[in-house]
Amino acid sequence: MATVEKSVSDICLEARAASHELALLESSVKDDALNAIADAIDANADLIVEANAKDLEAGRESNLDAALMDRLKLDHERLASIADDVRRIATLEDPVGRLIREFKLYNGLDVRKFAVPLGVIAVVYEARPNVTIDSAALCLKSGNAIVLRGSSTAAHSNAVLAQVARDAIASVGVPEAVISIVAGGDRDELRDLGTQEGVVDLIIPRGGEGLKKALKAVATVPVIYAAAGNCHVYVDATANLDWAEQIIVNAKVQRPGVCNAAETLLVHKDVAAEFIPRALKALADDGVEIRADAHARALAGVEVGEVAEATESDWDTEFLDLVLAVKVVESVEDAIAHINTHGTGHSEAIITDSNASAHKFTTQIDAACVYVNASTRFTDGGEFGFGAEIGNSTQKLHARGPIALRELCSYKYVVEGDGQIRG
Amino acid sequence: MATVEKSVSDICLEARAASHELALLESSVKDDALNAIADAIDANADLIVEANAKDLEAGRESNLDAALMDRLKLDHERLASIADDVRRIATLEDPVGRLIREFKLYNGLDVRKFAVPLGVIAVVYEARPNVTIDSAALCLKSGNAIVLRGSSTAAHSNAVLAQVARDAIASVGVPEAVISIVAGGDRDELRDLGTQEGVVDLIIPRGGEGLKKALKAVATVPVIYAAAGNCHVYVDATANLDWAEQIIVNAKVQRPGVCNAAETLLVHKDVAAEFIPRALKALADDGVEIRADAHARALAGVEVGEVAEATESDWDTEFLDLVLAVKVVESVEDAIAHINTHGTGHSEAIITDSNASAHKFTTQIDAACVYVNASTRFTDGGEFGFGAEIGNSTQKLHARGPIALRELCSYKYVVEGDGQIRG
Repeated sequence: MATVEKSVSDICLEARAASHELALLESSVKDDALNAIADAIDANADLIVEANAKDLEAGRESNLDAALMDRLKLDHERLASIADDVRRIATLEDPVGRLIREFKLYNGLDVRKFAVPLGVIAVVYEARPNVTIDSAALCLKSGNAIVLRGSSTAAHSNAVLAQVARDAIASVGVPEAVISIVAGGDRDELRDLGTQEGVVDLIIPRGGEGLKKALKAVATVPVIYAAAGNCHVYVDATANLDWAEQIIVNAKVQRPGVCNAAETLLVHKDVAAEFIPRALKALADDGVEIRADAHARALAGVEVGEVAEATESDWDTEFLDLVLAVKVVESVEDAIAHINTHGTGHSEAIITDSNASAHKFTTQIDAACVYVNASTRFTDGGEFGFGAEIGNSTQKLHARGPIALRELCSYKYVVEGDGQIRG
Repeated sequence: MATVEKSVSDICLEARAASHELALLESSVKDDALNAIADAIDANADLIVEANAKDLEAGRESNLDAALMDRLKLDHERLASIADDVRRIATLEDPVGRLIREFKLYNGLDVRKFAVPLGVIAVVYEARPNVTIDSAALCLKSGNAIVLRGSSTAAHSNAVLAQVARDAIASVGVPEAVISIVAGGDRDELRDLGTQEGVVDLIIPRGGEGLKKALKAVATVPVIYAAAGNCHVYVDATANLDWAEQIIVNAKVQRPGVCNAAETLLVHKDVAAEFIPRALKALADDGVEIRADAHARALAGVEVGEVAEATESDWDTEFLDLVLAVKVVESVEDAIAHINTHGTGHSEAIITDSNASAHKFTTQIDAACVYVNASTRFTDGGEFGFGAEIGNSTQKLHARGPIALRELCSYKYVVEGDGQIRG
């Protein structure tokens, strides 16, 4: 690829120059570019699958595990789905130019606060080549140039996907440097990207803890970190137990490997004797391994049988698997204290019929998303109606929860007057 | 002070614990605490002035310059003004709990997005001991615990001010650890503060480039940097020249040492012959030293006399003094290109009667605040009607422009349902 020989710094500077043009484009031009990317993915599917085959072969040779190999894989069906996602992003509302706030000052000045693109966003990611296209599409729609830095494992796939996208946007007159890619080789690139102050406005890591740690060690550019999701479902004394059962099963079982899946079930002591046996039975039927405190173990019931004892570290573990920690608590306050101690501020649910408990839980739990009588699995840009997401933030600065088009914007104050000066 | 012997880490953990209590306090309790601080400053003015005298003496011994000595100084009048500012902050609207957005999902879930405190904010600052109180007051009002780290130059003043504030809030039942202070001695503290991930949510540096650089080298916690303000006033071809003259004089002269003062005047060639002589005369009358390009120098006129030649570096310099760079440009596009190259994204003004020029300028200039026919000097939380500010951000993440009460908040999604699970 032509970009490979350029330095990270040069690539970022070109992206920055292109971002100024992009920021001024009409929505229709950006949407044309998105549709051109989707069409180009369809048209170049064979080429992309061919490049992906090289990555897959290298992956087999270096004994990548089955899960990683699956994430790495692109086939015609997956490519068609990626192209459809891009077309869907084209149909979303343009977040740029949205009037956020408007007010008049004492001296007659009109102040309007408008959403504007952040500028240049670097996305660093691992394995999954689909991130190349979906991140690029979200950034383009929100008027941001993107600098992609994937992993060496997916280097062939990413390079071809990025080039296909660059050619596609160039065909409708959008500068190709709006979508830039660095080779994806070594850690030096991470350091080079992480120190592009004044050139790169934000870095979003999409990958495991190792990647985040490596970035944290070097980045001086702002980064939004998406921490792990150690999510809880708390069943209150007044809970509708049918809802409680379906919610804990859904939150644990529906897709255990994702960050908004539940990892710990907390049950109020007043309903523990009734709820624990039925919930554990339902969970066991779905293949969930339970690790419980003494109280919950004693209540498990004959149908569930012997339940493993939870260790202290289980309360802090994001299992990302069919494993659930279970604990009986004394009160809603006790549940809140447990969650605020062990949670990661991602998604927390209470099942209750009590307004007082719900209010206490939603105000006192320190998390991006707090649910009353619903599954934690809804924390997602798509589910929230944002159309898509580029990640899920558990930090409090700038964006918390789903990072979608609005969250990829900054703002600008435009102040209009008729000669006002400060006294 | 009792806190001096504690480690930075212990101080931050205590602040974090206190922040959880603070986040739940009623507005009236927070306002009582603020008024108690103001009263305590009045009541302890002698004690504070005495502590300040020690810092002033040390400052004299180490030959601090006059400007620094002035910033360091507290007297009864300044203390009364600090106390009044705290009382005014008490009267502002509580930013916590504000409903930001509300929507219903396809499945009946009600989603509400509420403003919540960030948690623990560390403010690192230099010399000016008034920052101790005004930062603490803004953080308290917005429900955030503050960890203060001043400079050794103001250590006695800061310690007494913080203790007075801590005692005051404790007297109305607010945990004193809501306002915490580290000794303010060495760079190790900066590193210790900067790495309090999960404990400190945000660091705001209020000081010079050296402080920001030192923080940047060590911080892994999010930081909002307020860059310098290299602000421009551009006089367009159709400008009302009376407005233009009063605005450039105001933007340069009214308070040259602040970040929203103008540093460069750009004049469209079509009005240069008329505007340059009168503007330069008015500026010279106010003691402003001009550094101009060849075109502007040729137009300066007999009343102004010989004008110094601007060097390339003058376009990039925040003079913070009665010095102004002046340049004649070919067009509004030319002005925009100059500003986007040399500006720092703080505050930029166009003087024009043309809607087309105003639109081009406000959309294409990449800055926190863009003015049409008004002085750049209005970029200020107080002037914007926000009541106060803790700084002015020129970065795009989280807060851009004045950082006031709303900008000291994050948000939380509260999602209410009746048993919804994800399909």
